[in-house]
Formats: sequence, structure tokens, C-alpha cells
Amino acid sequence: MKTATDIDILVSEVGPRDGLQSVKASMPTELKLQWVSALAGAGLREIEVGSFVSPKLLPQMADAAEVVAHALSLPGLYVTALVPNLKGAQAAFDAGVHKITLPISVSEPHSISNIRKTHAQVFEEVQAVVALRNERFPDVQIEAGLSTAFGCTLQGVVSDDETLAIAVRMAELGVDEVGLSDTVGYANPNQVRRLFTRLRSAVGELAGSAHFHNTRGQGLANVVAALEAGVTTFDGSLGGLGGCPYAPGASGNIVTEDLVWLLESMGLRTGVDLDRLAAAREWLHKGLPGEPLYGFIPDAGVGKHFTYAKEAV
Amino acid sequence: MKTATDIDILVSEVGPRDGLQSVKASMPTELKLQWVSALAGAGLREIEVGSFVSPKLLPQMADAAEVVAHALSLPGLYVTALVPNLKGAQAAFDAGVHKITLPISVSEPHSISNIRKTHAQVFEEVQAVVALRNERFPDVQIEAGLSTAFGCTLQGVVSDDETLAIAVRMAELGVDEVGLSDTVGYANPNQVRRLFTRLRSAVGELAGSAHFHNTRGQGLANVVAALEAGVTTFDGSLGGLGGCPYAPGASGNIVTEDLVWLLESMGLRTGVDLDRLAAAREWLHKGLPGEPLYGFIPDAGVGKHFTYAKEAV
Repeated sequence: MKTATDIDILVSEVGPRDGLQSVKASMPTELKLQWVSALAGAGLREIEVGSFVSPKLLPQMADAAEVVAHALSLPGLYVTALVPNLKGAQAAFDAGVHKITLPISVSEPHSISNIRKTHAQVFEEVQAVVALRNERFPDVQIEAGLSTAFGCTLQGVVSDDETLAIAVRMAELGVDEVGLSDTVGYANPNQVRRLFTRLRSAVGELAGSAHFHNTRGQGLANVVAALEAGVTTFDGSLGGLGGCPYAPGASGNIVTEDLVWLLESMGLRTGVDLDRLAAAREWLHKGLPGEPLYGFIPDAGVGKHFTYAKEAV
Repeated sequence: MKTATDIDILVSEVGPRDGLQSVKASMPTELKLQWVSALAGAGLREIEVGSFVSPKLLPQMADAAEVVAHALSLPGLYVTALVPNLKGAQAAFDAGVHKITLPISVSEPHSISNIRKTHAQVFEEVQAVVALRNERFPDVQIEAGLSTAFGCTLQGVVSDDETLAIAVRMAELGVDEVGLSDTVGYANPNQVRRLFTRLRSAVGELAGSAHFHNTRGQGLANVVAALEAGVTTFDGSLGGLGGCPYAPGASGNIVTEDLVWLLESMGLRTGVDLDRLAAAREWLHKGLPGEPLYGFIPDAGVGKHFTYAKEAV
């Protein structure tokens, strides 16, 4: 989704996908639907509501089509889903999503470990997905989410050039957007600023979102650097729920609550209401009792004289 | 202390002062000395080892002179202390510190609540301290640490102009350095970048350190912004111990371990060894059993392919 004119930054909530898939328990579908409604009600414009993947691999995502159907009923919500392959893409298209995200590991060892595909196999799959979209679902957007773009626990160092080569290949294959993910929490602000700047040089307007994890407490520091490089879409997960089950040592996404506070404090409009966002945690407490949540704003509050960006102008 | 040539950024450890003064229990002196030794042994070049304040107000700091004496015995360590007034300055000078930090609240209500002085009274005190230094302790540096520079729970919004006016006044009164403190965790990266840039315009080479709290998880994000504004000295507290007992809602300083990791990851040399820094927590566990410590790096580790900045070149 291109950023609307009444917001400056699009906060894309990935908790229902990245969060829930990292938790062993499955959240009951009815509570997921309530949660997604609460997230949308808090002002989030884009939600990645699930993953179209084999329920044998991720039983937590077995109800993805049902969650998509519900999300599509919420006015103004841009509904996205993760899909690892053509089969998942077909299912997501059939379910009616507005956008799919294809995770592409820049690190080939990570790709093989994560989705059991070499780069060559991944490229073929992307080509098939784009062809299917072009032929039968022309309105659906396709984002390539480049995971391990900043380093990988398996491969080790991932060079800028490797990441950019995959980004360019994705553009050639016809995706609409290329985002960068710090899957295992290795990114530092200088690297983030440099790589997103180079990404924009390489693929222009296709340069997409930033997906950061907060493994080493550096998530919001990387947001500052990405903002400087012109990034306007950031993934976050309510309560920091989430992580990558295939990447040892990975921990949760940046916390949506803290991200929204940071952006609004900086004078950047997100359209999100922090009180309603905090209230949306209720459904996580109900659906995943005892699951730890993270974040500073829910505990510390916004501070006495906080104003939303729109009011601060 | 001016940054030495073999490091890019000076990490100034304030745990033995800001950390310990916020904890109700008093750490036994012998363990404090071991802790300070361990911190210096980890490569920290500057440590604020205590506060010369009435032991009735802060019994945790009653042994400040003894800690200073020990710290002075550690080779190459720059020894600093906080002093709220002339009496404290005299004691700190007598103890032999290399530098004193005078906390100056930009917010007058905070000043009155914190040290029971109006701005006019604070300025008189600074003048007296500078006069004493000039006359009898010419080698000791004086830093004005401008607290509530980014906002105050009592006054509310603190404008850039208010902060800069105090900074300029401090320069006129003869201090050697003016630092800015986000006492209650209100600062955002745009404000930090702007205010440190303006500080440098206003007082030139006297522009000093950044002292951030991590109340809303934004501490390291603010470090990124301050780096861009040319700041080369950052305060941190081992394990995030610390806070301001007079500012409701304030929580700990940024975590030294996470700060050092961030800087080194960005290619900025700190001279600090992360393993030895983590080991220094031992003395906090012994001296303040059960006291919660914070930080990501001690749990997550540095990541498989981390290299210190000096090695990365």
C-alpha cells in the first residue's frame, strides 16, 4: 500500500503472522478475528493477517483464509499475507488478499533451511507466482521480503551486494515492492541507512518496507536510520510477539506500541491511537494466556505532555 | 575528557552514581570498589563514581571520597563525580576527582524539587564553584549537565530556547563542558538531533555529552540521532541500573552493554570489551542481590559474526 495522504508513515502490523507463528500454542480463530478487529480499530491500515503455508508446518496458521475473509470485511484495511510458494500464493489469491509477501532469504543456507529451496528454485517460484497474479489476479500486489538482508546466523555476514543482487532480480521478475528484513537482529543503523539508500538506487520506487527485530535492543535505532534513507513503511508486532522459528537466536519484532510512540513523537503521523492499540493486547492475553509481551510504552505511558503529530503541527 | 585518538566515542559509565543513587539499598563499599575496578578493566575510560551530596539525602553515596580514592589508583581512568553545590564541589575537589558534573535543571520547577534552588540561586552556586576551581583546583574540569533538557514531568514541555539559554549562561559562567540529559525519557530523535546541533552552534567546543534514559525504549534511537549531531560522549549504566528518584516515571539509563554493542557494530571504536563488561555485572549481583538488571546483549549475545570496530576496518 502506498502511504495515504493523511499519514506520513505506514505501520504494518505483522503480529497475526510473524507473532503467532512463533508461538507454539494456536490462538483460537474467534479470538484472532477479534484481535484483528481491535488492531484495525486502533487505526492500523495494513495488517499481515496470516501465512498460507502447510498446516503441518505451522498449525497456528491453518485458519488463514478465515482470518483473511474477516479482515476484508473491515473498512479501509489493507489485508496482506505471507506465502512461501506458488501453492500458498494460489490460496492467498483465492482468499482475496490485497497483497502477498514472498519471503526471500538473501542467505542461501537460510533459504534451504527455511523453505528448502535454493535461490534458483526460489526465483522459479517467484516467476510462477507473478505469472499467476498477472493472468488471474492482476489487482493483487506482490512484495518480496528479503530476509537475512543484514546478516544470517547460518551464512554469517551478508554483503550489501548480495542483498542488492536479489533485490534487482526480484524487480526483474516483476514484483511490486522489495522490503528488507533483519531476520536475526544483526542490523546496525549505519548498515540500515546505507542498504536502504542503495536499495532505492537499485530498484527506485519499488524500494519497500523495513522489517526489524529487536533482538539486541537496536530495533528503534534502526528505524531512525531507515527514516533517513526514506523508508515510509515499518513492520511492527503488538507486544513484540514474534520471531523466526528457523533462525536460532532470533527474538521478536519491534514493538508496535513503541514504534508508534517514537514516530508520533518525531512529528510523523501514523494514524494509530496508542490507547486503543494498548487495549488490543486484551485479545492476546485471552487467546494466548501467559505468553510474554514486551514494550515500554504500555508500562511507562506516553509521558505527560505527549501530543500526536497531527496536533503538534 | 576529550576523546582519545584510539577510540571514536567515549562511553562514560554512570552506574556507580546514577544507578546506585536510584536503588534503596546501599552497596557495600568494598564491593563498589571491586565493581569500579571491573568496569575500568573492561575498558571504560571515564566513570562517574559517586555523588558528593549529603549522606542524609543519599546514604548510598556516603562513601564517595573512598570510591574516588580507589578509582584514582586505576591507571588511565578519568574519575568524575556529581556535585549539587559548592560544598559538594569542595569535597569532590579535595577527594581529587578529575571532573565534576553540576546538574542544572532547565526546568525551574524540577530544580526546586530536586535541589531546592531557583535558577538564580543555581547560577550563583555555579559561579562560586567555578571561582573555587579557578583559584585552588585549576586542573579539574567542570561540566554542566543540563537535566530535563528535553522535557519535564513537572514543568511539561521544555523549549529548545530555554535549554540553549541555560547552556549559554553556563558557558559565560566558565564551565568547560555542557551536556544534555533526558532525565525523564521524553526525548525523541528529531529533538535530539536538533538540540545538540543548536547546542554546538551556541557554545561551540563546549558542547558535551548526551545522557539518555530508556524510559520508553527510545534510548539507542536517540543515540543514533545524537551521533549525527556530532556527539562523541554518551553516558550509560551497566545493566541499565539507575534513574532519577526525583522525577516520577523516570526509569534507568541506557544500558552500557547495549550501547557499546551498537557503537562497535556501527564501526565506532569504544575501547570497551563486551565480555569483560558483562562479567562486571557480577559485582552488582553480589552488592545488590535481587536488583533487576536490564539489557539485550547480556541475554542475546553479540551475534555470531560480530567484530569490534577496530577489527572491522
